Amino acid sequence: MEARGYHVAVVGATGAVGQQMLKTLESRNFPISKLTLLSSERSAGKKVIYKNQEYTVQVATPDSFEGVQIALFSAGGNVSKALAPEAVKRGAIVVDNTSAYRMDENVPLVVPEVNEAAIKDHKGIIANPNCSTIQMVVALEPLRQQYGLSKVIVSTYQAVSGAGAAAINELKQQSQAILNGESFTPEVLPVKGDEKHYQIAFNAVPQIDKFQENGFTFEEMKMINETKKIMSMPELQVAATCVRLPVETGHSESVYVEIENHEVTTDQLKQLLKDSDGVTLQDDPSQQIYPMPADCVGKNDVFVGRIRKDLDRANGFHMWIVSDNLLKGAAWNSVQIAESLVKLQLV
Amino acid sequence: MEARGYHVAVVGATGAVGQQMLKTLESRNFPISKLTLLSSERSAGKKVIYKNQEYTVQVATPDSFEGVQIALFSAGGNVSKALAPEAVKRGAIVVDNTSAYRMDENVPLVVPEVNEAAIKDHKGIIANPNCSTIQMVVALEPLRQQYGLSKVIVSTYQAVSGAGAAAINELKQQSQAILNGESFTPEVLPVKGDEKHYQIAFNAVPQIDKFQENGFTFEEMKMINETKKIMSMPELQVAATCVRLPVETGHSESVYVEIENHEVTTDQLKQLLKDSDGVTLQDDPSQQIYPMPADCVGKNDVFVGRIRKDLDRANGFHMWIVSDNLLKGAAWNSVQIAESLVKLQLV
Repeated sequence: MEARGYHVAVVGATGAVGQQMLKTLESRNFPISKLTLLSSERSAGKKVIYKNQEYTVQVATPDSFEGVQIALFSAGGNVSKALAPEAVKRGAIVVDNTSAYRMDENVPLVVPEVNEAAIKDHKGIIANPNCSTIQMVVALEPLRQQYGLSKVIVSTYQAVSGAGAAAINELKQQSQAILNGESFTPEVLPVKGDEKHYQIAFNAVPQIDKFQENGFTFEEMKMINETKKIMSMPELQVAATCVRLPVETGHSESVYVEIENHEVTTDQLKQLLKDSDGVTLQDDPSQQIYPMPADCVGKNDVFVGRIRKDLDRANGFHMWIVSDNLLKGAAWNSVQIAESLVKLQLV
Repeated sequence: MEARGYHVAVVGATGAVGQQMLKTLESRNFPISKLTLLSSERSAGKKVIYKNQEYTVQVATPDSFEGVQIALFSAGGNVSKALAPEAVKRGAIVVDNTSAYRMDENVPLVVPEVNEAAIKDHKGIIANPNCSTIQMVVALEPLRQQYGLSKVIVSTYQAVSGAGAAAINELKQQSQAILNGESFTPEVLPVKGDEKHYQIAFNAVPQIDKFQENGFTFEEMKMINETKKIMSMPELQVAATCVRLPVETGHSESVYVEIENHEVTTDQLKQLLKDSDGVTLQDDPSQQIYPMPADCVGKNDVFVGRIRKDLDRANGFHMWIVSDNLLKGAAWNSVQIAESLVKLQLV
């Protein structure tokens, strides 16, 4: 523990994202004077190691947040709805990784590479966007700034770890069953809380989160609405189709964008992204170099490749965007927001 | 064997598509008076069963086609280039499932639901389009006819069986190795003849076929150029991003289309596709009904779902198109063309 630092709480410390948050806080050497690890009743009592020290995870209650300065929430929307206001009441700044407050107009929705300054407007809660939104806006923001952005059409290729540890287990068990020629019963994916469950192993499922009345899924609407909010572009045309794949970790996105400038070359776009914060350009078709989920795991950056100009529209470009959905899509972006709070002297 | 029928040859009879061709000829009870099964030297001598009768596969040579009336080729572009003209010279009509002749202006490129009449213009060879093109145009042609079509942007989710039996084995072996925590060396995918090979199990690889100078892959250019040719729409705006997935059989496509009519409702589009030849509508979000590759295997139809209007453009629609790439994408479409030859009295 640092002599000078902050009292940090992690809510959902035993989950897939919570574990990555602890790893990230440790690898970034975030200034922590006291660490409080919280969870639901089900996971309370579990032991977790942070910087070679063992912590016992405690049940999250309103009083758990006494003295906490920064609370990182990743224990589901209902936990955030119930406890984030309690944490704020006790003086904590909440960085919430659920969808509970993202579209609340009093809550900044932040990807530091895009809209770090929005953090200053917080009223206690700062929301971390949806994983598939985050990696896309990191790649789109440089285009918006440099050339103007008018239209985005994205098709996603999303990993099961976005649906939690149970979904990872289901993918592995189903894969083994199919390889063995054995039967199995889907129980988790595509959406744990929905009526029907389908095979994910060796399949592609065009449903992530529940369907809305307009025929889009909630995941698709998150990508559409959050992108507009983060980039402060309510007029941006955005469409999304979200698909779950038999991939453990690493979301990929096939993105078509139209920019306002009609004179930009593919090479200029590549150079722009190469020079952008949080982006690693992996784009050399002659050497078969492009991003893939299997290569992005454990890395904080957003990887972009397959950049090419549309054959019909001079202002249209296609690209392939890949990132570790548990890191930039969740844990790393949350810790980045905490680092911004420190840097901006807001905590 | 039927008393009245045709002398049919299948070239590539032992391959993944060739096997499906034989199954399809049998299930359709295609009128065959004599069946000649051919292959490369490597596979010659293998035994194949058709209608409970054993055939020995022979090496394909020019003279193999003496007396053949219909020759179904699916043994790679080089075999077609070398032997299809020899078959034609000997009086056969060739239905070629490779890319060798697809863009030849003297060769009709046919999907019977779309442009069956083009068969009449054949000069000996009729080309079967690329698998990912076929299933898309079956779903797009009714829109073109009814409402006019102006723009198509597709992102594919393609199965490994499109790359042959070796790719299927690679997916299974890699999947098992990863589940066991063992190491492995990719040797087939993404493209057998390309320099580098990458993991396909639990991954998504944005390369199918080799890269062209414009940054698109050959597979993407096939989708773009073949779609325009089949629909006789050189002016149609088409863009494609093609991605290989850890799925054994069944290609999926996330397709955005713009039609010329701005007044069409989602329900009208669903009804249109429901009534279209070769299409099965699977589209009821309230019941989580949508197409998936795992459900399409072994079926001839093209399955369409997730149809919804774009939120920004009244003439824009999104849809999800799935089909068995070995059947409608290859064997079934080839046999359909053969059936059309009979129906149109061209053989």
